[in-house]
Amino acid sequence: MIVLGIDPGYAIIGYGAVTCKNNRLFCSGYGALTTKANMNFNDRLESIFDNMTLMINKCRPDALAIEKLYFNSNQKTAIQVAQARGVILLAAKKAKVSIFEYTPLQIKSAITGYGRAEKKQVMRMTQKLLHLDKLPSPDDAADALAIAICHIHTIGSDLKFKILHNKGL
Amino acid sequence: MIVLGIDPGYAIIGYGAVTCKNNRLFCSGYGALTTKANMNFNDRLESIFDNMTLMINKCRPDALAIEKLYFNSNQKTAIQVAQARGVILLAAKKAKVSIFEYTPLQIKSAITGYGRAEKKQVMRMTQKLLHLDKLPSPDDAADALAIAICHIHTIGSDLKFKILHNKGL
Repeated sequence: MIVLGIDPGYAIIGYGAVTCKNNRLFCSGYGALTTKANMNFNDRLESIFDNMTLMINKCRPDALAIEKLYFNSNQKTAIQVAQARGVILLAAKKAKVSIFEYTPLQIKSAITGYGRAEKKQVMRMTQKLLHLDKLPSPDDAADALAIAICHIHTIGSDLKFKILHNKGL
Repeated sequence: MIVLGIDPGYAIIGYGAVTCKNNRLFCSGYGALTTKANMNFNDRLESIFDNMTLMINKCRPDALAIEKLYFNSNQKTAIQVAQARGVILLAAKKAKVSIFEYTPLQIKSAITGYGRAEKKQVMRMTQKLLHLDKLPSPDDAADALAIAICHIHTIGSDLKFKILHNKGL
């Protein structure tokens, strides 16, 4: 199973593909899509949609996992990120890829066991779980890989729960 | 010239097409696209994109005018509206329609001459300017028509300013 993790944004969109085979995790690629600050915002939206569509078609993931959005102190930025996130979701939907959403707390908890873990700790655990030689960079790509792992751990836990439940445990 | 006004949302998207010919305004149609509350949010995004694309292809506007977004007290709603607005902008972009954005203050001011006019006053002036027998309904469609008129008034004023400016006035 391949899961494509996405850290949403409009200037930098982190992505990371994680493959799960025989209960082991492998990194199949990561990086960031970017749009230039001097571009018109609507052109940036189109570029995000087109590049997301290309990437999904190349990666052919079984699922797309994306971070849930919360308001921050900057109104304008939050609206722009939400608009970009809308076209990212549309690209996945148009490519018929199932979408799963996780809060930062769920992601941190799935990777480190602690919902309020430091960013660096999450990155180090992501590196370890994927057997990477160095910390994934940029940070947005590291976050995206963590989101993909979070989804694999979550469905793994759900499966285990169902098996235990069926055994009457 | 045909301008398609859009009042963005995810449950109800108001639309209104206004034609300007020989300095006179005509309503070419209005209404609302809706998505059902029991639909998955990502399905709603896809439905909005597909229906916006159909409408733009049918209406063939020279410009799309849309309200700027501001945060309200409900975080979740604001994020969902922004995500839907992202796919509306993408639909216009993909159809190669120019996009123009206006604040509520600019819209009220263009229709009534007063930026803090009451909603009902804006609706009555919209009805009057378009020679409609009754107030446009639903409210979202009336808002969309007002946004379209705002764009026509704005580019009209800009043109007049340029003509006066060229005459050295």
